[in-house]
Amino acid sequence: MSKKLTSRTEDYSKWYNELVVKADLAENSAVRGCMVIKPYGYAIWEKMQAELDKMFKETGHQNAYFPLFVPKSLFEAEEKNAEGFAKECAIVTHYRLQNDPDRPGKLRVDPDAKLEEELIVRPTSEAIIWNTYKGWIQSYRDLPLLINQWANVVRWEMRTRLFLRTAEFLWQEGHTAHATKAEALVEAKLMNSVYATFAEKFMAIPVIQGVKTESERFAGADETYCIEALMQDGKALQAGTSHFLGQNFAKAFDVKFANKEGKQDYVWATSWGVSTRLMGALIMTHSDDKGLVLPPSLAPNQVVIVPIYKSEDELEAVSRVAHAIMGDLRSKNISVKYDNRDTQRPGAKFALYELQGVPLRIAIGARDLENGTVELARRDTLTKEVVALEGLNDRVESLLVDIQSSLYNKALHFRDSHITEVDTFEDFKTVLETKTGFISAHWDGTPETEEKIKELTKATIRCIPLEGNVESGVCVYTGKPSKQRVLFAKAY
Amino acid sequence: MSKKLTSRTEDYSKWYNELVVKADLAENSAVRGCMVIKPYGYAIWEKMQAELDKMFKETGHQNAYFPLFVPKSLFEAEEKNAEGFAKECAIVTHYRLQNDPDRPGKLRVDPDAKLEEELIVRPTSEAIIWNTYKGWIQSYRDLPLLINQWANVVRWEMRTRLFLRTAEFLWQEGHTAHATKAEALVEAKLMNSVYATFAEKFMAIPVIQGVKTESERFAGADETYCIEALMQDGKALQAGTSHFLGQNFAKAFDVKFANKEGKQDYVWATSWGVSTRLMGALIMTHSDDKGLVLPPSLAPNQVVIVPIYKSEDELEAVSRVAHAIMGDLRSKNISVKYDNRDTQRPGAKFALYELQGVPLRIAIGARDLENGTVELARRDTLTKEVVALEGLNDRVESLLVDIQSSLYNKALHFRDSHITEVDTFEDFKTVLETKTGFISAHWDGTPETEEKIKELTKATIRCIPLEGNVESGVCVYTGKPSKQRVLFAKAY
Repeated sequence: MSKKLTSRTEDYSKWYNELVVKADLAENSAVRGCMVIKPYGYAIWEKMQAELDKMFKETGHQNAYFPLFVPKSLFEAEEKNAEGFAKECAIVTHYRLQNDPDRPGKLRVDPDAKLEEELIVRPTSEAIIWNTYKGWIQSYRDLPLLINQWANVVRWEMRTRLFLRTAEFLWQEGHTAHATKAEALVEAKLMNSVYATFAEKFMAIPVIQGVKTESERFAGADETYCIEALMQDGKALQAGTSHFLGQNFAKAFDVKFANKEGKQDYVWATSWGVSTRLMGALIMTHSDDKGLVLPPSLAPNQVVIVPIYKSEDELEAVSRVAHAIMGDLRSKNISVKYDNRDTQRPGAKFALYELQGVPLRIAIGARDLENGTVELARRDTLTKEVVALEGLNDRVESLLVDIQSSLYNKALHFRDSHITEVDTFEDFKTVLETKTGFISAHWDGTPETEEKIKELTKATIRCIPLEGNVESGVCVYTGKPSKQRVLFAKAY
Repeated sequence: MSKKLTSRTEDYSKWYNELVVKADLAENSAVRGCMVIKPYGYAIWEKMQAELDKMFKETGHQNAYFPLFVPKSLFEAEEKNAEGFAKECAIVTHYRLQNDPDRPGKLRVDPDAKLEEELIVRPTSEAIIWNTYKGWIQSYRDLPLLINQWANVVRWEMRTRLFLRTAEFLWQEGHTAHATKAEALVEAKLMNSVYATFAEKFMAIPVIQGVKTESERFAGADETYCIEALMQDGKALQAGTSHFLGQNFAKAFDVKFANKEGKQDYVWATSWGVSTRLMGALIMTHSDDKGLVLPPSLAPNQVVIVPIYKSEDELEAVSRVAHAIMGDLRSKNISVKYDNRDTQRPGAKFALYELQGVPLRIAIGARDLENGTVELARRDTLTKEVVALEGLNDRVESLLVDIQSSLYNKALHFRDSHITEVDTFEDFKTVLETKTGFISAHWDGTPETEEKIKELTKATIRCIPLEGNVESGVCVYTGKPSKQRVLFAKAY
């Protein structure tokens, strides 16, 4: 494998694909469209999971686990949802293999072991969960029901890319049940804002909270809230969605409850999810031509120490200092790795940790020992400084805080300078071709115009921003009246 | 649902099934053999996961994630493994549904969307993982490779029981690769001992470490180590296994490495796993006719506080004390729940927390406020004491430690008093019918005798204990010579 990455300007897409593999995050597997998440990539995902899980629990949710399979009769019960996922689902039809008489030592599907009813590998779990909730909800006392699940799901995508779009992916899916429409709406918006907080605080990715147009809505939802981020190539990425499902699933699965007045009513629902796709957003927001750049909050190793030595004696002296530093940093809950492998030279180690995005690198050599210093290198700015051993702890701590906020501010500046207000369709097309990013434009509110613009420009409406100013105008394409600008972009 | 559990003596199996459902741990789903793990059950599983994950990482393992599906050609590559799982696997054959012309609004499998190669839903991941390791291992420098995966797996079992045997279950599977046979053997034994430590320290379940006979070995393993526990009905339960896989998978997937001398050699392998079956072991080891009994180490709530009050004023006064207690206990990392619901009477709450196995219950009433006391009830012994508020913290802390060790000691005493040495086949049968438990007996080492004894008594060899005394004797069935006693039992 060549060591140098393709640069972003040369070929952004190739840069991404190479980076994911070379930084040891993930790789393609023998199963079409499914990825292997390698230990380093999985360690980042675990940190995301831990933070999200804490936020879900702090907002009153509990975890549970529901079956991987959805019987076809349940899958098809909510028609819009079924229609949305029918064309891309893996279907289990048999439950046994047998020896293949034509190929000794090999196996074939046993035709006598055909399932009476086919099982769909969950592309999302509303159907199986609402069929279960039917048994859990009788009265308003059973509500709200606030449940989350960490799971794998399968959507038979034809064009896949590591993390961004894979046939199998890991995610969490919240599924809540409420007594009133108002409560369910509050929940859907709350969880969207939890996602926004997570993205901004931990991933250092600024996001726009908005609501999807009807044609971009989740299949089976009455309203889909979302967080939208902007990648360095000017394309948008939907990083999380939260759906107000109305009473659609309650009606499909006949889930009613006795309200305080003793009357029967259908239950109101939400569902919300983020997935390993977030890994793609994280990579594409911050990384550069040298490799991954990780925000300290999610870096498996926040600091790496590399010894520089010419003899065993020097290594021993350096190691003593390195171990002392490690002890100090760990006592402050800073994760640190000491790479004293003698099979690699310092230069190769520097390149490796740049590729893997470790936020801070400490190099210690013989001269440093004499001077009581170390060399401290920042991954995000690629700058170095010589720092006294005394006070190193505080310097590392404050640099990590600084890196986290710098990454956010840099991404915010890029995002904000890539939102362009346009008022004519000519400008719309020009901006898309030159500057890219989000285009803030008026739209007449019809799916037909949305579709037409998509056909002509490949740009879709990413969202109607929740905090958008209400401002009258005319549709950039049809000239019909509009009440609010919406955000268009080409998207992942 | 009737509130009273069937007693263990009346019908142990029914007691278990009822308890799992009534204590809100799990329930059967609409998918044959698959369970829903409810929030309370999942919270216990999460605590198990967290402790195990820590132990795996402390022993140098990293987590990763591999695909859910195994292409048939990979599945069948290691013949013994394939043969072992072929008869109970879910098979994906199609990737799309279409509208069913005969049933408007319904769906059917699209016959044009047949996969070229069938995909097996992983029953275990050796095949897909070793096919991946082929790309990761070139030299001894890449070894050892120490990886664990938390995942769902599917085995199409015909007779299922909640937690104990389900078509889909959650587990972790470690898959390691080593340069030498000796190293791989050390790893397999080490992880078996990690399981033993976890079972004894956290689950309060004494286990016997042993090695399986050839006929009880994992399909594809050269040696299977295990931990065996004894349930209250005298039946054994295999709680975890760790396999030395030799070079079987390396040969099947052609995984070679250059050793230090530059020679090519096949890699040595282990795999090891524990699953949600541990929940069944936990339930059956400690629980009683009133419900679940949980060791404090794994209880989602270690303490519950129930207020006793006749008026709003009394509740307010009690709540002030309860909140102070909660603050104190939480500062000591003790998890505590305050149940001030006004929809339930104290008696109903007491019964609920007994059913759910909360280790300690604190009741506070108006009289307690006057006296500066609370009532403290232990779930395991069902004993109560009145304790001064002052010093309550310490009392709770020491009681939790005491409950944890009492549960272990009680289970250990039961287990040890249910290991019977027998020297004749008559005694063997009598013990099995009367006392049950483990039978320690000599065996001639042949699969034929093992099979014959199983046929006649339903008892199987659970393991050849690792710490068994080497003692000459004669086989309890054939009279042929034997070098060590083995443990027989009827088993889950």
